Amino acid sequence: MELVNKFNELVAKQKAYIYVLTLAGWDSATEAPRGAFQRRAEMLGVISGELFNLQTSKEYQDVVYGLFKRLDELDDITKREIKKAKKGLDKIIKIPKEEFVEYNKLIGLSQRKWEDAKHNNDYEGFKGNLEQIFMYNKKFVAYYNKDEHPYNIMLDGFEEGMSMKEYDEFFNTLKKDLVPFVKEVLNSGKKLNDAFITDFYPKEKQKEFAEYLIEVLNFDKNSGLMKESVHPFTWNTHSTDVRFTTRYLENFMFSSIFAAIHELGHATYEQQIDSKWDDTTLSGGTSMGIHESQSRFYENNIGRSIEFWEAHYPKLLEIFPEQLKDVSLDDFYRGVNKVEASFIRVEADELTYPMHIMVRYEIERMIMNNEVTVDELPKLWNDKMVEYLGIEPKDFAEGVLQDVHWSAGLIGYFPTYALGSAYSAQFYYTMIKEIDVEALVKGNNIKVINEWLKEKIHNFGSSRTPKELLFDVTGEDFNPKYYIKYLKEKYSKLYL
Amino acid sequence: MELVNKFNELVAKQKAYIYVLTLAGWDSATEAPRGAFQRRAEMLGVISGELFNLQTSKEYQDVVYGLFKRLDELDDITKREIKKAKKGLDKIIKIPKEEFVEYNKLIGLSQRKWEDAKHNNDYEGFKGNLEQIFMYNKKFVAYYNKDEHPYNIMLDGFEEGMSMKEYDEFFNTLKKDLVPFVKEVLNSGKKLNDAFITDFYPKEKQKEFAEYLIEVLNFDKNSGLMKESVHPFTWNTHSTDVRFTTRYLENFMFSSIFAAIHELGHATYEQQIDSKWDDTTLSGGTSMGIHESQSRFYENNIGRSIEFWEAHYPKLLEIFPEQLKDVSLDDFYRGVNKVEASFIRVEADELTYPMHIMVRYEIERMIMNNEVTVDELPKLWNDKMVEYLGIEPKDFAEGVLQDVHWSAGLIGYFPTYALGSAYSAQFYYTMIKEIDVEALVKGNNIKVINEWLKEKIHNFGSSRTPKELLFDVTGEDFNPKYYIKYLKEKYSKLYL
Repeated sequence: MELVNKFNELVAKQKAYIYVLTLAGWDSATEAPRGAFQRRAEMLGVISGELFNLQTSKEYQDVVYGLFKRLDELDDITKREIKKAKKGLDKIIKIPKEEFVEYNKLIGLSQRKWEDAKHNNDYEGFKGNLEQIFMYNKKFVAYYNKDEHPYNIMLDGFEEGMSMKEYDEFFNTLKKDLVPFVKEVLNSGKKLNDAFITDFYPKEKQKEFAEYLIEVLNFDKNSGLMKESVHPFTWNTHSTDVRFTTRYLENFMFSSIFAAIHELGHATYEQQIDSKWDDTTLSGGTSMGIHESQSRFYENNIGRSIEFWEAHYPKLLEIFPEQLKDVSLDDFYRGVNKVEASFIRVEADELTYPMHIMVRYEIERMIMNNEVTVDELPKLWNDKMVEYLGIEPKDFAEGVLQDVHWSAGLIGYFPTYALGSAYSAQFYYTMIKEIDVEALVKGNNIKVINEWLKEKIHNFGSSRTPKELLFDVTGEDFNPKYYIKYLKEKYSKLYL
Repeated sequence: MELVNKFNELVAKQKAYIYVLTLAGWDSATEAPRGAFQRRAEMLGVISGELFNLQTSKEYQDVVYGLFKRLDELDDITKREIKKAKKGLDKIIKIPKEEFVEYNKLIGLSQRKWEDAKHNNDYEGFKGNLEQIFMYNKKFVAYYNKDEHPYNIMLDGFEEGMSMKEYDEFFNTLKKDLVPFVKEVLNSGKKLNDAFITDFYPKEKQKEFAEYLIEVLNFDKNSGLMKESVHPFTWNTHSTDVRFTTRYLENFMFSSIFAAIHELGHATYEQQIDSKWDDTTLSGGTSMGIHESQSRFYENNIGRSIEFWEAHYPKLLEIFPEQLKDVSLDDFYRGVNKVEASFIRVEADELTYPMHIMVRYEIERMIMNNEVTVDELPKLWNDKMVEYLGIEPKDFAEGVLQDVHWSAGLIGYFPTYALGSAYSAQFYYTMIKEIDVEALVKGNNIKVINEWLKEKIHNFGSSRTPKELLFDVTGEDFNPKYYIKYLKEKYSKLYL
């Protein structure tokens, strides 16, 4: 059908604009000089304005809405593309162009401004940006749909089909079945030989180990790379260019190890997507939650398992013979799974991690409900940390300013982290029925695991919804019991 | 005037496209994964096609040609902008869009292909690209002007006002007055204590010294950065984002030192351009020759002077105590100014450097004259190396494949390197009448030199032509005698 060809042509053009903007984002986050930011924001504002024109052009609207009326005539793939495109159009079409351009400029500037604010513990210097970002997002969702709760629209944007109703149910289950167990572990009084964790590990040596890790985890360097940034992240434009970052803290080596493995999980997902989707709107992972399930799987189910360290602790010992000379494999394994109430989400252990998400979920809901001002956020944050973890951040950098997300306009993203961990457990219990994960990890045979994930999950890109994928792979709908089971089994052995 | 505002508006939009394409180029050259290149070329093809549309739009043509008819009503700056824009339009307007897009795709792919070819010493695998690049360039200049010699059009494109006539004159003067002196030096039989040059210098340590260098040379890191790439280069989009690369050869430390200083010279020029030009078409250095005069000035007049090493050799000794333990300051100074017939242009000493340029100039002229095929290039190259330097390359990597330029479509660029060195000497003899360069370098007071260059040369951006600039600063037109004088004075002392 001619209209379908036209659709593909228009999409290809939009993709080229998205590509260069994404590339500029990577540059900003990993190396662009500070002084360049003002002018860069102006330039990228022009390009994103052009993209906006393309994404909202009369021509594109006619094609998408035209095809939407003839859905029955389309094959399943095109059908899904058109539904997705229509939803995207519905969301964007009522936003005045100037506001969209202004918002993109704001986002362009805010990321570096957030970095500075975090570095200087200067919430005052950043809250104006934050207020603007919240304001625009509320405005934008109201343009789209005045009848739905704004936060529900945001949540669905990151995880198709999820709303406050489903998340409340999920978090309530965690509160009921997991929180008491977490308290039990935190109060177990178990002593670890863990002084090594905060020993000094020179950055260059950490880099050497990170390079080793991505090698043994089979990361495809021909189609990607690893770099360094303040906040680790994964970046991709298509299956042959997938990049990620880690960060090196010389007094906390776990940061670079687990950030690298985590982001490598995201990156492996993207690299293993069938390249046939590259040209379509169904390229890339299907949702934030499924994406996070993959990164968490690599980070926790593989990277924090005893089998993984049986295979790779000798290499780490070789690189850090001094720092680790009195640390047995068992000490090390317990160290990487140490549970404690802590401030920084990305450094948090698996078990307390969902508590960090609850804090953010509840705050975001209040923001989108206009129940809290930016001035009140730091205190609100700290109060919730006390409520869920019993500890109070002493500055903004370990409180409300720690995460990059809001500075990038990502509101409603956080809950997918906890959801992803839960998906991950559900996938895991299916996987171990089919392949011997423990033996494969211990034998450094990650390729087989990658293949399993590719065949069951990765290669589909966005051609299946998260709900479809979860059901197809595990034979049931989302069920948080696997998550709770996994955590209780693992941490009972370690702590109780 | 409304038309001028319209012009500025259209230029601003074009600049945003140039910005993202330039950024993608930086990424390609410094880190993008190999596997990404095919798809990346497609994407960038779309964006450069869009830029081409803007640069050749009816609207832009009307504005530029309209203003060109009313030049008398414009201020001097706008006048120069419009003249420049008109020349650009004249050159581009007759190129069919498909050919322009195809050419840009070709260039996008060729750079990495050249790298591979050089790495694998595989001329066969690259010559097809080269042939295509030459073909397109000949075609494009013929669209512009059938009456002028194609190479003259290329030459003028890199250095306004230069043609084969001027270059022939310049190179003939060198042949007459410099070549006999070079032979005398090469045959002097002077023995140096120079085994240290090819000692082993670990990359990380070299990086440390390169970082030190850009610090003492006052590079503004808030508006730029230094990175690593196969072929060192400088990159800029505006005065607040200027980047350059160096390369680290562990058995030839001079490569990283002098590539870093050389590129820093280019970068300093760009950073010191008055930011008021950023929004205009007169941003950036005024010509390749003037640009090269600045990089050569930093590299040779500063970086290879005895005063510079009096100031900084102690630091180098501190970083490489073992490698340099038997090397006196005098040995080191003679080492960095060692003259010898060698294969690689970018590693060549100051004195034999113009011979490398003559080889390229004569070959390019033959290419543009259709006197040679790509199959014959390697032999032709080698023959000319024998003719001018008495040595024959043993493979393509040290012969015809050594430079990035042709793979990037830069034909007519090479001669500006020799010209720049000659400009540099002419500027130098003016500078030393006004400030005590030797004392400033020795006292590590580079700021004063930077200021002089900023005031006399840099801050004008492209608002003055190379000819105007040279005359304004030195009080006379281009005169190669300073270049010959400088080289003879310096190398007589060292060698005769």
